[in-house]
Amino acid sequence: MADTKVYRASTTAPVNIAVVKYWGKRDTKLNLPTNSSLSVTLSQSDLRTLTTASCSALFPASEGDSLLLNGAPSDVSGARTQACFRELRARRASLEAADPSLPKLSTLPLRLVSENNFPTAAGLASSAAGFAAFVRAIADLYELPASPSELSLIARQGSGSACRSLFGGYVAWRMGAQENGGDSTADQVAEASHWPEMRALILVASAAKKGVSSTSGMQQTVATSGLFKERIATVVPANMAAMEKAIAERDFEVFGEVTMRDSNSFHATCADTYPPIFYMNDVSRAAIRAVEAINAAAGRTVAAYTFDAGPNAVVYYLEKDTEAVVGSFYHVLGGVDGWKTAAIGGLKPLLALDEGVAGLLQAGVSRVIMTGVGEGPIKTDEYLVAEDGSPAKR
Amino acid sequence: MADTKVYRASTTAPVNIAVVKYWGKRDTKLNLPTNSSLSVTLSQSDLRTLTTASCSALFPASEGDSLLLNGAPSDVSGARTQACFRELRARRASLEAADPSLPKLSTLPLRLVSENNFPTAAGLASSAAGFAAFVRAIADLYELPASPSELSLIARQGSGSACRSLFGGYVAWRMGAQENGGDSTADQVAEASHWPEMRALILVASAAKKGVSSTSGMQQTVATSGLFKERIATVVPANMAAMEKAIAERDFEVFGEVTMRDSNSFHATCADTYPPIFYMNDVSRAAIRAVEAINAAAGRTVAAYTFDAGPNAVVYYLEKDTEAVVGSFYHVLGGVDGWKTAAIGGLKPLLALDEGVAGLLQAGVSRVIMTGVGEGPIKTDEYLVAEDGSPAKR
Repeated sequence: MADTKVYRASTTAPVNIAVVKYWGKRDTKLNLPTNSSLSVTLSQSDLRTLTTASCSALFPASEGDSLLLNGAPSDVSGARTQACFRELRARRASLEAADPSLPKLSTLPLRLVSENNFPTAAGLASSAAGFAAFVRAIADLYELPASPSELSLIARQGSGSACRSLFGGYVAWRMGAQENGGDSTADQVAEASHWPEMRALILVASAAKKGVSSTSGMQQTVATSGLFKERIATVVPANMAAMEKAIAERDFEVFGEVTMRDSNSFHATCADTYPPIFYMNDVSRAAIRAVEAINAAAGRTVAAYTFDAGPNAVVYYLEKDTEAVVGSFYHVLGGVDGWKTAAIGGLKPLLALDEGVAGLLQAGVSRVIMTGVGEGPIKTDEYLVAEDGSPAKR
Repeated sequence: MADTKVYRASTTAPVNIAVVKYWGKRDTKLNLPTNSSLSVTLSQSDLRTLTTASCSALFPASEGDSLLLNGAPSDVSGARTQACFRELRARRASLEAADPSLPKLSTLPLRLVSENNFPTAAGLASSAAGFAAFVRAIADLYELPASPSELSLIARQGSGSACRSLFGGYVAWRMGAQENGGDSTADQVAEASHWPEMRALILVASAAKKGVSSTSGMQQTVATSGLFKERIATVVPANMAAMEKAIAERDFEVFGEVTMRDSNSFHATCADTYPPIFYMNDVSRAAIRAVEAINAAAGRTVAAYTFDAGPNAVVYYLEKDTEAVVGSFYHVLGGVDGWKTAAIGGLKPLLALDEGVAGLLQAGVSRVIMTGVGEGPIKTDEYLVAEDGSPAKR
């Protein structure tokens, strides 16, 4: 009798926000970067993707592999998604070849269902968490013995920065040197528990649609920026070394300065692209001025801004400096959604922000997200595919 | 009997807007730059400083040298102004030593009166025109046989970019190699008449006060930007060579592209400064998008933006493309001051600018200035100091 079981595995995966940025590919097909990068994995209590991977002989082969993302069918025919399917199936097929008693899952259509716990409108890049959950869930479904680093190599082919979301804590993506990308993988620089006091306040700037996707933007930078090669050759290697040391020593002053300098350097190469790419706007710049004012008032670096390929500010700080950092932003942005009022009740601002800065933030920040460093992907028994193979009712 | 004559000389001097930017000093005392630069001298019909230099034994020595700038006393005790006085007096003293029949003007107090024909509120850097007129007027008063290049060496010590305002047309400031700055002078790459069709449309962005002065800003960049040295070593030398060739060949496509790329590169190094320096704002970026849209609609580079240390856009174009360039901006900005309506009557826009871009421009551009390439300093018999030595009534 045919195997009519619906095989399922579910995992959650985190968002990560780089403090040394990935920008530029040396191989666009394999998603091999021009430089190493380093990120902090954010807590899944606040930001995570939940993905269930399932396969079954009941699923019509004619439908092929499918992905339901936040309730809507999502195209899986893209080269990057296909690369992930192919890599994972090949590994499963090897296991099956070595042990004929294993069910032939590699031959079955995959049905994936995925949901984020944060609004898409937040303008947060969800592709890292998405591809990490995608790869981790299928690897669990296939019971692959692969390490997170090995899986990072697969996730990288889906979305570069996804490889860093396979680990919790502080994560480096080593650019590697091999032509086939075999050594372009992520590893954990430090566990979340090594420096658990790291917090992040995300200021979501009213999200107009991104002008230039990161995928095309970074290659325009590689092709046209006269300053980019200096970033790759000198700036990033120095920042990587300084950042790893700062994390090892839990030195926030250095962590913060390198984070801000690297964000500046990345956006400088965007501005030097021809035609220039601008991800930051006047609201983003106001957030920078606010962080500078908070640090000046504190007399040390208590807050560090960083910006990805969009106007949202991510402000890193340590728990002990919550009042100085969060209090100052709450004072002007108390009216928007997202504050964890229990954590910030009664906080006094360290300073009153400049009126111009406050006005720009009030006009442009639509919500905040309060989070902190967190763990890597977590296996869960919460399924988005029911036992009969249909998308679970929620 | 004592000489009670009031000696006077008057000159006008132009504004120049660089297409390869000066940003960074290798010697702050002598104003020696880290790189060569190149500018277009703008017509004095639209933008000029008029300066009268006078000296007389009637002027009380106790008052020393003085400068009345736009009707208000201006401090002349700064090291840069003093350097200009000193250099000019030394040259006059040499003449007097060689020819004892000459009046001893070098020993008399200088009284300077200076006026701009454009509103200070326009936010245009007037120091280049100001120091060029200052040096040229005193040199004329002293009847110095110095060439414009020799005077450029003096004006450079007052304000770096002032050295380029001693020439009309297309002007290079060669960074030089000598420690004493003896070879860091300006020269004329081409006369205005070589390529007289060059026009400039200046979009004056409602001028909030500059956050960071260029003098301190550029040295922060030199000290902290990891990308800056690449600009100096590679980007600018290539841009200088390409720009000189483009001017020689009257090739606006190349002139425009290099102008835009060099402006981008300069502002990228500002953004890479720590803390970052932002001169451009969302209005500036809208002007860039407008230029890109105009060029895309024209199917070639008909307009080129450049930004100095502030949010104002300067858009270079050729007279034959007035309709395409000016017409498109006039269509959305017709309500602000500064249009030469005779020149633009009946102009049809090449395209309707994107609503977001148009809205930002309408909200942020307070006036426009229409001008073009022009001549260097011009001696005039319009005096701002009367024959009796008092500031002239006007």
